[in-house]
Amino acid sequence: MANQLHNELKKDLPAGKAGFQLERMIFFSDAVFAIAITLLIIEIKVPEIHKEELSELTVLQALAQLAPKFAGFLVSFLLIGQYWVMHHRMFGFVINYTERLIWLNILLLLTIVLMPFSTAFYSEYVLRSVITPIIFYTVNISLVGIVNFFMWRYLSKPDRHLTENLTKPMSKYFSLRSLTVPVIFIIFSFVYLYSPIIAFWIPISIPLILRLVFGSMKKKLFADKK
Amino acid sequence: MANQLHNELKKDLPAGKAGFQLERMIFFSDAVFAIAITLLIIEIKVPEIHKEELSELTVLQALAQLAPKFAGFLVSFLLIGQYWVMHHRMFGFVINYTERLIWLNILLLLTIVLMPFSTAFYSEYVLRSVITPIIFYTVNISLVGIVNFFMWRYLSKPDRHLTENLTKPMSKYFSLRSLTVPVIFIIFSFVYLYSPIIAFWIPISIPLILRLVFGSMKKKLFADKK
Amino acid sequence: MANQLHNELKKDLPAGKAGFQLERMIFFSDAVFAIAITLLIIEIKVPEIHKEELSELTVLQALAQLAPKFAGFLVSFLLIGQYWVMHHRMFGFVINYTERLIWLNILLLLTIVLMPFSTAFYSEYVLRSVITPIIFYTVNISLVGIVNFFMWRYLSKPDRHLTENLTKPMSKYFSLRSLTVPVIFIIFSFVYLYSPIIAFWIPISIPLILRLVFGSMKKKLFADKK
Amino acid sequence: MANQLHNELKKDLPAGKAGFQLERMIFFSDAVFAIAITLLIIEIKVPEIHKEELSELTVLQALAQLAPKFAGFLVSFLLIGQYWVMHHRMFGFVINYTERLIWLNILLLLTIVLMPFSTAFYSEYVLRSVITPIIFYTVNISLVGIVNFFMWRYLSKPDRHLTENLTKPMSKYFSLRSLTVPVIFIIFSFVYLYSPIIAFWIPISIPLILRLVFGSMKKKLFADKK
Repeated sequence: MANQLHNELKKDLPAGKAGFQLERMIFFSDAVFAIAITLLIIEIKVPEIHKEELSELTVLQALAQLAPKFAGFLVSFLLIGQYWVMHHRMFGFVINYTERLIWLNILLLLTIVLMPFSTAFYSEYVLRSVITPIIFYTVNISLVGIVNFFMWRYLSKPDRHLTENLTKPMSKYFSLRSLTVPVIFIIFSFVYLYSPIIAFWIPISIPLILRLVFGSMKKKLFADKK
Repeated sequence: MANQLHNELKKDLPAGKAGFQLERMIFFSDAVFAIAITLLIIEIKVPEIHKEELSELTVLQALAQLAPKFAGFLVSFLLIGQYWVMHHRMFGFVINYTERLIWLNILLLLTIVLMPFSTAFYSEYVLRSVITPIIFYTVNISLVGIVNFFMWRYLSKPDRHLTENLTKPMSKYFSLRSLTVPVIFIIFSFVYLYSPIIAFWIPISIPLILRLVFGSMKKKLFADKK
Repeated sequence: MANQLHNELKKDLPAGKAGFQLERMIFFSDAVFAIAITLLIIEIKVPEIHKEELSELTVLQALAQLAPKFAGFLVSFLLIGQYWVMHHRMFGFVINYTERLIWLNILLLLTIVLMPFSTAFYSEYVLRSVITPIIFYTVNISLVGIVNFFMWRYLSKPDRHLTENLTKPMSKYFSLRSLTVPVIFIIFSFVYLYSPIIAFWIPISIPLILRLVFGSMKKKLFADKK
Repeated sequence: MANQLHNELKKDLPAGKAGFQLERMIFFSDAVFAIAITLLIIEIKVPEIHKEELSELTVLQALAQLAPKFAGFLVSFLLIGQYWVMHHRMFGFVINYTERLIWLNILLLLTIVLMPFSTAFYSEYVLRSVITPIIFYTVNISLVGIVNFFMWRYLSKPDRHLTENLTKPMSKYFSLRSLTVPVIFIIFSFVYLYSPIIAFWIPISIPLILRLVFGSMKKKLFADKK
């Protein structure tokens, strides 16, 4: 990493070590993200078919029954992917760290690590007319959003000198964006009471809503980087 | 990383951070590749034999029954290995990134993460005269190839300034190579209709075909690095 | 990494390689920490409910039965997190390595890798009035603490030239802190004999005790880094 | 990484990229090592005891039955640890890479990834008087040793310019050391025929033998690094 970072960082560490300490925190997060995103596939078990019943049709039927699991896998893969992209963007501005930032980050990883369970739980019951697993899943996603919000807030305080090039409107935009998913959850929790059918489609629609709402906003803030 | 990279990269990041951001994206990919390639072994379960039936012979028989699983493990390990080598080569040319490149890369990782499931599915049924799992497996491999193709295409547009030292013939060679597996799949899907037996051997033959077809082509393009 | 590190490191390696060798050891540790902390979630299985019994109530009951597993997950996640933070802090001082340090570190990773099993074992039996799993779990935590203690001791010998900026009182503070968990375990093992109920809460209370005991001590030693 | 490395590396990559490419290969290997070493714990399942039979004694008995699994875990953890240390040492000399080296390395990782299966297989049957799993396990270890041997041989050819500071006697010492385990295996396979009891202890004794045989030899070659 560039030398200019090092001067800004903690003085009780050997020269040249502080920048590395920040990198290490980031790579540790990446490893956790990578494992959580890959563990999603473990929840999809290969269908077992007895010898007598084995035919091209029964295999296809067994595969079709896995459809909600694949849907859950896809949604969660893209959501964890999106949160990783956000983490990647966030730490692109970070030039220093504190112990509190480390713990906020560990809290974020905790919510990410829960995702494989939430996804499997949601996928197991999504087509069986119970809403508890859907609430559980959306609460999990909301928690990721909330911790994200607090991280942006914590980082953007200028007197902490934790970031560089993170302007006020940018940090506002990112904090706001982090809260979208929890807000969507609160709105739709009322919809649950009237129509559980609609509720099934919420987790899948979240990535779309994010893109629609924030796509245009983002274009104004940043130069277009196609 | 060398300082010359940093000047080329995004200006809204702190000085010295942009090169690190690219490295982070690469290391995240490596972690996903590494987990996917290692999870392959999880699908091979230790055979359980009851006390009364336990003998050297029954253990050997149980091991022999795992043969298609080991074959699947081997093929998938080498294929994921090959895709990692391709990713390694690709990002050897990359000096800058865009959000679109990040998402193309996440899409590639999605197809890689599917591999442990596809392998287990294929291995479970390969010797039981159904072809659905073989198609599923080859579709998975093809998807990796197709995303790879689009990544090479995206990277090679000179006005994007994403790569250095990637010549026109090189990028053509790599794009073409990425498409080989999907093409082999289309050809052999007609073979399926006449002879399912041959189809069983396709996944295993793909690495060989790649080497035969592209080995000589490559030698012309690059200096020989034995 | 900064160039000043390299001069201090082993001379039988190519120039510029020694600092990288130390980094590699650290990143390897991070990967193991990351996998161990993420594997914790694998132990929580999605509850299975038969068609006839499926209702919002039965799903909630099934989820409620997972409560001790979630508690175990949470405690272990925070403990592994805490040990990672300690490892992160420790290697912030390290500027050189020996083969013995590598093996001490592998021993530390061994105790970390045991955590997912200990957690699952403890969670399975925590509400079923047996204390063996609780002892097993606390022994595991104690082993992490003991190896940590020996690592601080090994690193702090000034004639080894393994660290920079690690003052005598700092290394004393960190060694002492590493031993707290084993000591708490010995004290409470006597409590076990009289009241198993209290024993259930020990693993959960350890992070709190650590914060209470060492919070004030730490403030004196270091500048406050909010 | 130091700048002097870059000049030696491939010229068809952007300036400053070649050293990073080597690092990437190393970190990818580390991730695979880390996952393989951590997956070992997954094979040890928490014992399940029915309500009626639950007592401190039955839990202890269940734990005692896991003893061979823990022994297998311990041996494999230390062996993978040892192979990682060897890989760490090996790549401390490497300053350049070829595609063949990449594939030799992937082959090495293949043998490492097999270890969690071999360990579980060996642990399941070690006390049940069949020797197939023990042979399987030792073959696995031998394969790691053999690939290691070829990597040292490949790297040490001076005209390849792949290493720096790797003297002739060093590379001989390391190649020889890599072959020890396969050789021990061949010798003991004759012992198998007469006494299966002794064979059980071979995997456990290998680390000890390595230390005894090579401890003194190593001291002559290298400066003592306590």
